[in-house]
This record gives sequence, structure tokens and C-alpha cells, in this order.
Amino acid sequence: MSTQPTHRESPQSVKGPRINKGLVIVNTGEGKGKTTAALGVLMRAWGRDMKVIMLQFIKHSTANFGEQRAAQKMGITVRAMGDGFTWRSRNLEQSADLARAHWEDAKEIIASGEYQVVVLDEFTYPLHYGWIPVEDVIQALKSRPEMQHVIITGRHAPEALVEYADLVTEMRLVKHPYHQGIKAQPGIEF
Amino acid sequence: MSTQPTHRESPQSVKGPRINKGLVIVNTGEGKGKTTAALGVLMRAWGRDMKVIMLQFIKHSTANFGEQRAAQKMGITVRAMGDGFTWRSRNLEQSADLARAHWEDAKEIIASGEYQVVVLDEFTYPLHYGWIPVEDVIQALKSRPEMQHVIITGRHAPEALVEYADLVTEMRLVKHPYHQGIKAQPGIEF
Repeated sequence: MSTQPTHRESPQSVKGPRINKGLVIVNTGEGKGKTTAALGVLMRAWGRDMKVIMLQFIKHSTANFGEQRAAQKMGITVRAMGDGFTWRSRNLEQSADLARAHWEDAKEIIASGEYQVVVLDEFTYPLHYGWIPVEDVIQALKSRPEMQHVIITGRHAPEALVEYADLVTEMRLVKHPYHQGIKAQPGIEF
Repeated sequence: MSTQPTHRESPQSVKGPRINKGLVIVNTGEGKGKTTAALGVLMRAWGRDMKVIMLQFIKHSTANFGEQRAAQKMGITVRAMGDGFTWRSRNLEQSADLARAHWEDAKEIIASGEYQVVVLDEFTYPLHYGWIPVEDVIQALKSRPEMQHVIITGRHAPEALVEYADLVTEMRLVKHPYHQGIKAQPGIEF
């Protein structure tokens, strides 16, 4: 029964490298937890009085889900500029234009250095659909302030972005309640 | 370049099943984001004025990382009762005793129905090491209040727990900054 504890990942036990730098973090894959883990990082960083912002590329600008409500209570800016498009959308050109405009703002926010953590939520989709060139994104990441962390979430992260990133996690779906006839629960999934 | 958007996962587009129930969620795997995604759910639920609690089974009771600091600012209880053990620990019996005592408290907290979301952080470790019987855990989950969500995090989730859970995500490490000589960054990883 009793297995020996293997390695641990808590900061107490981190040995080795001592380089400090801002990280580019990518949460991708088909599973749950990509945006949710980015929220968790925002919460941690906010707990350390770091300045954080989340720019949401897909969620509708009128979204008022759990994360928007929490952010408001915490004084964290969560700016949604998408139009909530889905594969059923009629007007993909408008979605593309919105994403491009939002990215222009995001570049300024990144370059300004005002925030220590910048989350680009569901940003992989406009990259995957070819609305924003990935080279432009990598250029903006390369020239960003040295200690700034940038977190990008969404499925289908482009290879060049994965290549450039420091920390990449794939969220893999093992079991999903939709498949068992249970709907998305408020406060949990949105 | 332009790929057609495929399916989306936002709540707007969820079709089909309409069953409401508390979920048992397991975040497991070798990658990052297991605890972090649980924090993100706490933040969302807190944003919706739900009552939430996180019980940490491994982190030392004196831990004061980003999540503890954030929780304090938000008025969320994060109770750490571990002794921060690692594979180098001398006194695993003490770690086991602490975990078992913490689980007794956790059972009461779950049964009380006082919280709508209960996170059992790094709880898979005492299960994996055989310190707490998984049957006891599943029994407590089965008899919990119907609408209560329970989130369990950690590597090596026991098969019986995965079997019982509603939503299971495996966080898979694609690329990790430690491997490139970059240390754990405050506000991001802890």
C-alpha cells in the first residue's frame, strides 16, 4: 500500500537554477482548466500585490461570468473584447477585426510595462485561424519588459508559440460531465 | 491560413443536458496548473458569492505564498495542515498522521454543507501513499450535500477516484522552465 513519496513540486524543494525572468506561459489542449489556471495565477500574483490584467479575445464584451465578477471585486481589469463567436457565427470577418483591434491594444499594454502579469485569454484562436500572424506576437513578446509574465490560453497553440514559450502545459480531458448528461455549472466552469 | 473555427466551450454555446448537480473534479497529471486551476475555480465561485474553502494537505501550515495572501484579502479560508514533506522527509509517519487528522476535519466540513465548493489540495498524495483509504473518501463524497462541488488536486489520482469523479483533467507537461535554468517565479508558481 504505502508507496514512497517521489519528487515534489513545491517551491521549498526547488533546487538548482537561479535565473529570474518573466515567463511566457501557454495553457493549451482540449481539456478544461486553461483559462481557469490563468485565473489562479492572477489570484496568486494579486495576492503578492503584483499588477495584473486579463484580456479576453473571444468572450463577449458583455460577459458577466464568475471571473468578471471576481475581478471586479478584486480590482483586477478583465477586458473582454470578443463577440462570443462560435463555429455557428455568421460574421467571422467581424470576429477577426475585433481580435486584431484587441491585439493592437494588447501590444501597447505589454510594451508599457504597467502590468507584471498579462493574460491573453483564448488568444490561440485568432492565431490558429490566421487572423493575427504568430510572428507579430513573438516579436511583441521578445521586446516586452524583462520581468513581465505573459500567459496565453486556448486550444491549438501554434507550434512557433510553443517553441518560444518557457512553460507549456497541455490540459488533457480524461472525463467530462457533459458526456454524462450534466450541464456546465455556474461558479465552476464560468 | 484561415481555418474554420471548430467547436467552442463557452457556456453560451453549451447545448444539451440540463442536469444540475455538484461535481467531483480531479486535476491530476505531472504538469503544472492542478492547484492553480482549483484556485481559478475558487475565484470564479467567490465572484458569484458562493462560499468556498481550500484545505491543503501537503503545504506547510506556515505557508504564506501568493494563494494564501490572496485568499486572506478575499476572505476565503485556505487551511494548510501539512508539514511540507518531500521525499527527503525524515518523518513520514508524522506526515501521515497530519494528513489523517486533516481528512477527519475535511469530512466534517464536507458533510456540514457550509461550503458550496471544497478544494482538497494535493489530496491525492495521502491517498497514493496509502495513508487514507480511497474507499473512505468515496463514501464521504457519495453522502455529501447534492449541490456541493469538491475539487481534488495532485498527481497519481487513484483509479477508483478517477472512476467516481465527474470531471477529470490531466495536466501534461509539454515544456518546463526549470529545464532551461529558470527558477520558480513568485506570484506565478507559488
